[in-house]
Amino acid sequence: MDGTTPRSAPRTRTRSWWGWGWADAHPADAECAAMGALLPGTLARPLPVPDVRDLVRGLRIGAPAVEPPPALAHLVTADPADRAAHAMGKAYRDVARALRGQPGRIPDLVARPAAEQDVADLLDWAGGHGTAVVPYGGGSSVTGGVEYRGDAHRAVLSLDLTGMRRVLEVDTEGRAARIQAGALGPDLEAQLRPHGLTLRHFPQSFEFSTLGGWLATRAGGHYATGRTRIDDFVQSMRVVTPAGTSGSWRLPASGAGPSPDRLFLGSEGALGVITEAWMRLQERPRHKASAAVSFTDFHAALRAVRDLAQSDLSPANCRLLDPGEAALSGAAHDGGSVLVLGFESAHEPVDGRLARAVELARSHGGRPGGNTGPERHADGTPGDDAAVGAWRAAFLRMPYLRDGLVRMGAVAETFETAATWDRVPALIDAVRTEVGAAALKATGHHATVNCRLTHVYPDGAAPYFTVLAAGRPDDGVALWDDLKAVAGEVLHRYRATITHHHAVGRDHRPGYDLQRPEPFALALRAAKDALDPRGILNPGVLVG
Amino acid sequence: MDGTTPRSAPRTRTRSWWGWGWADAHPADAECAAMGALLPGTLARPLPVPDVRDLVRGLRIGAPAVEPPPALAHLVTADPADRAAHAMGKAYRDVARALRGQPGRIPDLVARPAAEQDVADLLDWAGGHGTAVVPYGGGSSVTGGVEYRGDAHRAVLSLDLTGMRRVLEVDTEGRAARIQAGALGPDLEAQLRPHGLTLRHFPQSFEFSTLGGWLATRAGGHYATGRTRIDDFVQSMRVVTPAGTSGSWRLPASGAGPSPDRLFLGSEGALGVITEAWMRLQERPRHKASAAVSFTDFHAALRAVRDLAQSDLSPANCRLLDPGEAALSGAAHDGGSVLVLGFESAHEPVDGRLARAVELARSHGGRPGGNTGPERHADGTPGDDAAVGAWRAAFLRMPYLRDGLVRMGAVAETFETAATWDRVPALIDAVRTEVGAAALKATGHHATVNCRLTHVYPDGAAPYFTVLAAGRPDDGVALWDDLKAVAGEVLHRYRATITHHHAVGRDHRPGYDLQRPEPFALALRAAKDALDPRGILNPGVLVG
Repeated sequence: MDGTTPRSAPRTRTRSWWGWGWADAHPADAECAAMGALLPGTLARPLPVPDVRDLVRGLRIGAPAVEPPPALAHLVTADPADRAAHAMGKAYRDVARALRGQPGRIPDLVARPAAEQDVADLLDWAGGHGTAVVPYGGGSSVTGGVEYRGDAHRAVLSLDLTGMRRVLEVDTEGRAARIQAGALGPDLEAQLRPHGLTLRHFPQSFEFSTLGGWLATRAGGHYATGRTRIDDFVQSMRVVTPAGTSGSWRLPASGAGPSPDRLFLGSEGALGVITEAWMRLQERPRHKASAAVSFTDFHAALRAVRDLAQSDLSPANCRLLDPGEAALSGAAHDGGSVLVLGFESAHEPVDGRLARAVELARSHGGRPGGNTGPERHADGTPGDDAAVGAWRAAFLRMPYLRDGLVRMGAVAETFETAATWDRVPALIDAVRTEVGAAALKATGHHATVNCRLTHVYPDGAAPYFTVLAAGRPDDGVALWDDLKAVAGEVLHRYRATITHHHAVGRDHRPGYDLQRPEPFALALRAAKDALDPRGILNPGVLVG
Repeated sequence: MDGTTPRSAPRTRTRSWWGWGWADAHPADAECAAMGALLPGTLARPLPVPDVRDLVRGLRIGAPAVEPPPALAHLVTADPADRAAHAMGKAYRDVARALRGQPGRIPDLVARPAAEQDVADLLDWAGGHGTAVVPYGGGSSVTGGVEYRGDAHRAVLSLDLTGMRRVLEVDTEGRAARIQAGALGPDLEAQLRPHGLTLRHFPQSFEFSTLGGWLATRAGGHYATGRTRIDDFVQSMRVVTPAGTSGSWRLPASGAGPSPDRLFLGSEGALGVITEAWMRLQERPRHKASAAVSFTDFHAALRAVRDLAQSDLSPANCRLLDPGEAALSGAAHDGGSVLVLGFESAHEPVDGRLARAVELARSHGGRPGGNTGPERHADGTPGDDAAVGAWRAAFLRMPYLRDGLVRMGAVAETFETAATWDRVPALIDAVRTEVGAAALKATGHHATVNCRLTHVYPDGAAPYFTVLAAGRPDDGVALWDDLKAVAGEVLHRYRATITHHHAVGRDHRPGYDLQRPEPFALALRAAKDALDPRGILNPGVLVG
């Protein structure tokens, strides 16, 4: 999912085992029913919030197929509820399956290493006992990245890294920190704050995802332009593989051969377990400015965004919402598109850049929003345009609302891609048309297929789609799988990537296999065999 | 070598077979002697400019060990002079060996493919005939990247890509172009100019290096900050390997697994032959401004540069010359350091950014230079500060002067690295002290060891060293190899990279093998074996 500036949450709240985020943040039954009423073909009443104890009983989750050795026993649990909560990520498919009491394969064990050596010891043991190891950070994968499929392994161990969550060193002079992979977003920012520094990587999942997960999936942050992908902030990494532990040097840059870090970035747990990284940090921004610009013509708005991406202005936020997306998020209700612009800087005022960006958008027919929001954010920076505030609030609430719709029997999911500018307009039209048609044919009801641009580049953009459709009673996730296959065909036809920042996981394997060059697949398989000769690391992801 | 804005040269000039660049640009004997007189312990008269015909006679370069098949014969030559000119790159080691008539192994054949299929056919044939293939672009390697060492192969083919030098497609809307790998810098810029676009990648070797060489070695361009490495400008690449041809999709970004392009970037011909790439382009800059700032205290200057690198100012040029380097280039003669600053933009004036950068430098004790240079460059952009102009002229002339000094029997070479800010000051001091001491001990004469920062980052910098030392009569390149080993030990002690942008080649293998994590080496070897099972591709580079 794409990102914006989040607020950290108190630590006493309980995570939902079946749905997104905090258990207490999910919409109540009445709100679910109200949302469902807006989407033809959904249920009259929401499916009940599932109790994990029912699942444990219903599936008879019992003794694991393997037992850890005494030396590692203190790191490992076979508690059924804990195992059930580690069985899947947080995609629509996962939520829908949890609601129906039909999760993926339940791991036999959950391990919580406290140190790098624990990870190495656990891999050693697992390799000798036919046990697959699925690395698990915040568990927010929306592409089947943290579940085990099939039965090729005797047992499955979910390797939960969140016990390794400390900022170990801070280099204030060089603005970098050594951070353990299991640190959740709010955790690591809280530890950096006393140093006046910030990683400033805010994916939508910020509260519920870890540094290690960001690195393993090449996460995209909240910056809409420029260096936003986590890759660019890596100074060095440590990765435990069954063939040994890899530690790259702390370097601002190097031209010594292909980048070692770039092989492990995006490796999704298939080549090794990332345990820590030196990350490049920034000063906290002291100046912010934001505005919303409305467009009657979506294609004119696309041209405005392209011009902005090719300018020197470097907006931190440059999100274009199509009419459906603008209405859904409350940013506009007049059938127009809305461009949400934001600038930030630690060093100097950004109002001039915002003004020039708005002027550029106006030259493409954009109408700057007249509303003004709060004069100041809580952190003292200037407040937002009302449309910007509406969009941000809706943005962080969106995954919870998705789960509410799923409880109404709806299909509610997002997917994203990236393509060069020459393909973007037709690609967006084709996804909307073809996925909408497939949903109508399958359900007899019109589906909602909205689009926003989350990240923009001088040479292209990342369209992000939201699909809301009536489900088919009792067919589980087959309808979504069908719609996703239609979407995948469109992406392939336009040579648009199967994922811009949601990762490949297991759900995107067909598209990924079509996209990657075959010689690279050969090289990756060979690397996998060299580093993980017993094939225990996140089997089915990327290779194998 | 690092970069600045070059001028393209007329096409009728002749390339030097033994030294840098154009044959007619080398200093005359009298200039060589004058330079030598400044460096104690050098020869009284320059070594003669070598004639390739003497080399051919002296080495009895005769029939190649293999003959190409009739179908490929039109692409291949066994001409001895052509082969001799492809035997080495342009490092000090290469020039010194050429002057002494002792080049590396002469390739048996030189092939000039005209199309990607030619490359595939040549690799197929070579693989079946025990023939090593050494990809060759502009031949400007300074790390032994284009020579064959040893005798493990029956024959050696130098694969000269410069016949494939066309810009094949231009996407003006998305600012990208599909460019063949053999295009030299001036060639590709000339083809882009009618479209109003530029790659704007100007390594010091710009005139004598190719896109394919830049990609294979992860070249650094003239931008001192921000996105300067060629990697960041790659949209997609095609690479011919013995196991098949790899073609990545044109994408502005993707999060689908580890980046395929990043495996081939920096692969130095060991994994495949890069044949073309879609490259991200820019508009030509319309606004430029530059200035020089002097510092009495080099360490204060380092802090100024760090502050600049951590600011929002993004100078295009931010080169810090230490006192020796400033004197050598004519930028200063008062024993101080000089910071050369430059800004450029296609969209808006940059004088304000320059003024703020100068002010920031002044806050660290810098004194802005009072001289002003030409009011306008030939391209209409504003002129330079005189110190900036002096530096730029000296910069492009430097490699020719190096060769002049080598003719005087001197050791004259550069090497570069990168390290985090906390290590930069002590690292620079240690290199100067220890390499200087080693040269004094070996030759009895004081050597010159200068330093400049070529590229700077928020978290570190790339120091670039120039070593000028008296040679030892008739010992070939052993003295330099000894000095380079001393330098390598210092770099390793400070965990500074063995190369920031000169590549690994064969000369940097010891340092590279120490630097790269062993699991990554395992993965790279496995990838090499999968893509090049017969081990014909640039043997000895990176792996094998």
